[in-house]
Amino acid sequence: MNNTSLSLSEIYSLAKTTLLHHGCDEANASILADTIMRAERDGSLSHGLFRLPSYVASLKSKKVKGNSKPSLEKITSSIIRADGDSGFAPMVLNLGLPAIIELTKENGVGILAIKNSHHMAALWPETEAIAEQGLVGFACTSYKPMVAPSGATEALFGTNPISFAWPRLGKNPVVYDMATASMAMGEVMVASREGHSVPLGTGLNKEGKQTEDPSEIVNGGVLLPFGGYKGSAIALMVELLAGALLGEWFSFEAEKYDNNDGGPPKGGEFILAMSPQIIAGDGWENHAEIFFKKMESLKGVRMPGNRRHLNRLDKGPRNINSKLLEKIDSLLK
Amino acid sequence: MNNTSLSLSEIYSLAKTTLLHHGCDEANASILADTIMRAERDGSLSHGLFRLPSYVASLKSKKVKGNSKPSLEKITSSIIRADGDSGFAPMVLNLGLPAIIELTKENGVGILAIKNSHHMAALWPETEAIAEQGLVGFACTSYKPMVAPSGATEALFGTNPISFAWPRLGKNPVVYDMATASMAMGEVMVASREGHSVPLGTGLNKEGKQTEDPSEIVNGGVLLPFGGYKGSAIALMVELLAGALLGEWFSFEAEKYDNNDGGPPKGGEFILAMSPQIIAGDGWENHAEIFFKKMESLKGVRMPGNRRHLNRLDKGPRNINSKLLEKIDSLLK
Repeated sequence: MNNTSLSLSEIYSLAKTTLLHHGCDEANASILADTIMRAERDGSLSHGLFRLPSYVASLKSKKVKGNSKPSLEKITSSIIRADGDSGFAPMVLNLGLPAIIELTKENGVGILAIKNSHHMAALWPETEAIAEQGLVGFACTSYKPMVAPSGATEALFGTNPISFAWPRLGKNPVVYDMATASMAMGEVMVASREGHSVPLGTGLNKEGKQTEDPSEIVNGGVLLPFGGYKGSAIALMVELLAGALLGEWFSFEAEKYDNNDGGPPKGGEFILAMSPQIIAGDGWENHAEIFFKKMESLKGVRMPGNRRHLNRLDKGPRNINSKLLEKIDSLLK
Repeated sequence: MNNTSLSLSEIYSLAKTTLLHHGCDEANASILADTIMRAERDGSLSHGLFRLPSYVASLKSKKVKGNSKPSLEKITSSIIRADGDSGFAPMVLNLGLPAIIELTKENGVGILAIKNSHHMAALWPETEAIAEQGLVGFACTSYKPMVAPSGATEALFGTNPISFAWPRLGKNPVVYDMATASMAMGEVMVASREGHSVPLGTGLNKEGKQTEDPSEIVNGGVLLPFGGYKGSAIALMVELLAGALLGEWFSFEAEKYDNNDGGPPKGGEFILAMSPQIIAGDGWENHAEIFFKKMESLKGVRMPGNRRHLNRLDKGPRNINSKLLEKIDSLLK
């Protein structure tokens, strides 16, 4: 695979120029380009420049507004409702996160209820931003149906990712961000292309039977939740929190109304922030460190988020797939 | 297996008499007996009379107070800190749940942060009580180390159950309550005794290798989280929410200080309540029903909580294991 070396600022500029070219205003282009650059910086490649053609598709089809002006409404002392104004999610997050952080530092708990936004980035940028302020962050969002509930053979849930972040004393937060699907459909497609098998439990074939053959899942089959009926219960919780609790679409509604331009459907994002300083009181950071030291002392354990944080230390250029760059260049013509 | 038929009120009386006999005051005995009766009523047998000998053991050893007087402290408009006064959890829940429900109906979100309590019941009674008031409930608690984090071979996490409940229009809530361990250790012991195998991923043997032989897990091995590294991440979240966020013990601390009398160690419970009426606004119940109808229409799907709610409709007597009743009778001598 041919790669081209780009500095982080070149990645940012390329994304921003492309977005401006397709009708984003300065604010929308800058914030989205920053999200893309940070994904490449952390090695979170599936959420970096790789997403740019899809973002452009949704700007072209006018499903997503490139000049979105999100707004916030404080509805109680602990809840902020955010309207994404049909823009990409990083825009409404950029406005909403400082607000929910401030409120949580005062009240100990805050909910940012995001509606009318289009999310196709990772979730760790929002939970990590919360944890960097000494708070606990949790986020989830739904998508379009790709995952069958446990026992069923038909998709109802999106890949429904959740992210959780815990602040550490003088260290990067512990952060995870994971689909509640057994595997991303993209990974199953790669396995199919390369002729590998996938573990039982990954998905069903079109007859509704478990299969280790990824091509059977891709061709008329369906993904399963991670961890059987327990993971299915978590995926169900995500549908309810990112859908009914916010007054936003469920995955199956998002699919019904989406124009299938390849970009993200409209949807909701549920964000919860909590303050250990207020809830537990003084000493919480040292108490948590005792636990993390214990956990890190166990052979074989990897702390969630570590790999990204290590990648982040490298300020040098990143290797970007040349084919992807050609594709992005063609979008600028 | 010999069973004896007992009415629900006989179950309640037996539990209450036994608890009074071992030093519980009227309030503690009534509330704990009610929790035990409701578990038997719903067919949640592992949390019913089966637990009574362990409760008694902790009353005898004086680890748990039978005359606990829990107290609440409202620390912000959305957070109540609850002190269990070294009693069994149902006592502090009985006081704290109405308070957190009231506060959540006003503010849209509430946290009940329970410390200094001993939990060995199911979690659905608390989340279901919240959902019966039109709110969304989430609860979790840790225990003593029985589960190795993904990648490790040594126990750090408790079986760390989580429960989630969503209110339905004119119906019982959707409720689940599940360990984040692959399986309860009790189930693995039963499989070992009966000579059955368990699925790979259930646990490790004492060499730290995955095994299908339950006796290898029971004898010096360790349980694994459900669903591999993703379930491990959920179990980690529970340790942090029920431990560091509340200023209470982690599972490994609970083990260090517990007297191993067979009853539940001291620990924390994290409870979150949210109001869809405040966050989503009018129409949320009907919106959620559209989703549930869709989900129920899928062949093979079972809605979480349904089995318990069906059991509950039966007001008749329950079959109680006669050996267990003999054991309880002997506690009254």
